[in-house]
Amino acid sequence: MTYLLGIDLGGSSIKAVAVTPEGRTLAQVNEPFVDHDLEWAVKLRALAARLQREQGAPAAGIGISAPGLAAKDARSIAVMPGRLLGLEGLDWTKHLAAPRPVPVLNDAHAALLGEVWLGAARGLENVFMFTLGTGVGGAAMVDGHLLKGAIGRAGHLGHVVLDWNGPLDDFNTPGSLERFMGNKFIAQRTGGRYATTHELVAAVQSGDAAARELWLQSVRALGASIGSLINVLDPDAVIVGGGIARAGATLFEPLEKFVRQYEWQAAGHVAKILPAQLGDFAGAYGSAWNVLKRF
Amino acid sequence: MTYLLGIDLGGSSIKAVAVTPEGRTLAQVNEPFVDHDLEWAVKLRALAARLQREQGAPAAGIGISAPGLAAKDARSIAVMPGRLLGLEGLDWTKHLAAPRPVPVLNDAHAALLGEVWLGAARGLENVFMFTLGTGVGGAAMVDGHLLKGAIGRAGHLGHVVLDWNGPLDDFNTPGSLERFMGNKFIAQRTGGRYATTHELVAAVQSGDAAARELWLQSVRALGASIGSLINVLDPDAVIVGGGIARAGATLFEPLEKFVRQYEWQAAGHVAKILPAQLGDFAGAYGSAWNVLKRF
Repeated sequence: MTYLLGIDLGGSSIKAVAVTPEGRTLAQVNEPFVDHDLEWAVKLRALAARLQREQGAPAAGIGISAPGLAAKDARSIAVMPGRLLGLEGLDWTKHLAAPRPVPVLNDAHAALLGEVWLGAARGLENVFMFTLGTGVGGAAMVDGHLLKGAIGRAGHLGHVVLDWNGPLDDFNTPGSLERFMGNKFIAQRTGGRYATTHELVAAVQSGDAAARELWLQSVRALGASIGSLINVLDPDAVIVGGGIARAGATLFEPLEKFVRQYEWQAAGHVAKILPAQLGDFAGAYGSAWNVLKRF
Repeated sequence: MTYLLGIDLGGSSIKAVAVTPEGRTLAQVNEPFVDHDLEWAVKLRALAARLQREQGAPAAGIGISAPGLAAKDARSIAVMPGRLLGLEGLDWTKHLAAPRPVPVLNDAHAALLGEVWLGAARGLENVFMFTLGTGVGGAAMVDGHLLKGAIGRAGHLGHVVLDWNGPLDDFNTPGSLERFMGNKFIAQRTGGRYATTHELVAAVQSGDAAARELWLQSVRALGASIGSLINVLDPDAVIVGGGIARAGATLFEPLEKFVRQYEWQAAGHVAKILPAQLGDFAGAYGSAWNVLKRF
């Protein structure tokens, strides 16, 4: 059976899938690691070997995704300061001793490709995606083309301006969406009342009016960013995933309302707002599709 | 001599060029019209005929650009409410009785293509452009691909959020860049002191400190928007054109400073800020290139 291997290297675990060109999943693995001394590199190589052994034949192609900016030649992650020491510049085709080139993608780019291939954005050509977690990640596809850009950083949608007089974030963006929605700023923006977005959402769901007001501030910020980005990227749909998206209707109902308020509905066009479907494995599926598309 | 005809329909004049595939200009015409009773359509057809007569041979291809959103099949402008009555849905291939299809582009998209072919962005694959005038227009190219989007509205860069609690603009965007930089809001944002940006810039250039403060507010707004969009579109260069860009160093010197302040210089990458070079004819050249690329 012909199959692809898609492997997504996260910050603390490796997600891998063996999947047919038609999108049928043959195997799915989530393997944790400690970010120390290249443990991730050793484990990932062993995992790729094991999955291929279990399938009884080598994969027709292997695709990788990882945090950081992918190199132009797609053989490595070129830029990833501070974490996963050794990742920068590692040539995955060599590291996996693969018979064919192993293309490497940024993890958010891969997650969007996964959702386009087999998830919420199936078959769409104009779509962008937010991943709401510790920070706010993103990726964008326009006219069927995944946006990469000059150094592979296109689609960092968490770092768009909402309040141009606000404090700068890690990327020098003033008052960025990440500050209004990223979990890492939750204590700061709630005056220390909540330590995690999960706690805030739980309070909203239990009927706490003050919590609801704080939460709607974040949701409105996301809605305004989506309205703004619709003018730049002109999507048919916007996908929202990541841990915070598990809030479900508590997120999506008010978000829908805010997007309609801030959206330029040119010619009556309305962008759909959809929850991501592939969860933690989106990047792995996207990596598999990325290698499949090269055949 | 093989040549292309590129024709840009503006709000009050038609710009046309006859240009060789190598980019040599054979003719350049700017013909005014009154937006009444299809005068623009009649004049444009006559102009196309005249230019071809003068060249002594039919053009190898004709490309058109115009305000509004171009249809997916590129045969017409699908959406242009309020102005140029009759433009919506007009099939240019038929109207010009052309032997080959006449592709139609949005005017801002065409201007960017022109600058990429023969102007400030020559040879670049990752670039976006602002046109600073009555409003703030824009267009973007990523990985060599001109962004069009679901309904052809991608690249409306004047309608990005800077102040998410600000008033909505015509596109429902709160506190958008257009409000901080578009000439149509100049009286409003200067408390009535200036009727045009030209007057404000003249006051700055004559050493008026209060004028300078007002002006730098607009320039900083543009710089913050560029910093934000760099994270989305990852350009090698940002082109700035339109009437307000004639302010020259009065615009570009502080703009450069603000962009450096708000830019994520990942891996030391710095986006160039460049003045547009083709002026009013950028759209005409871009339209010619658009048809040339189809051969």
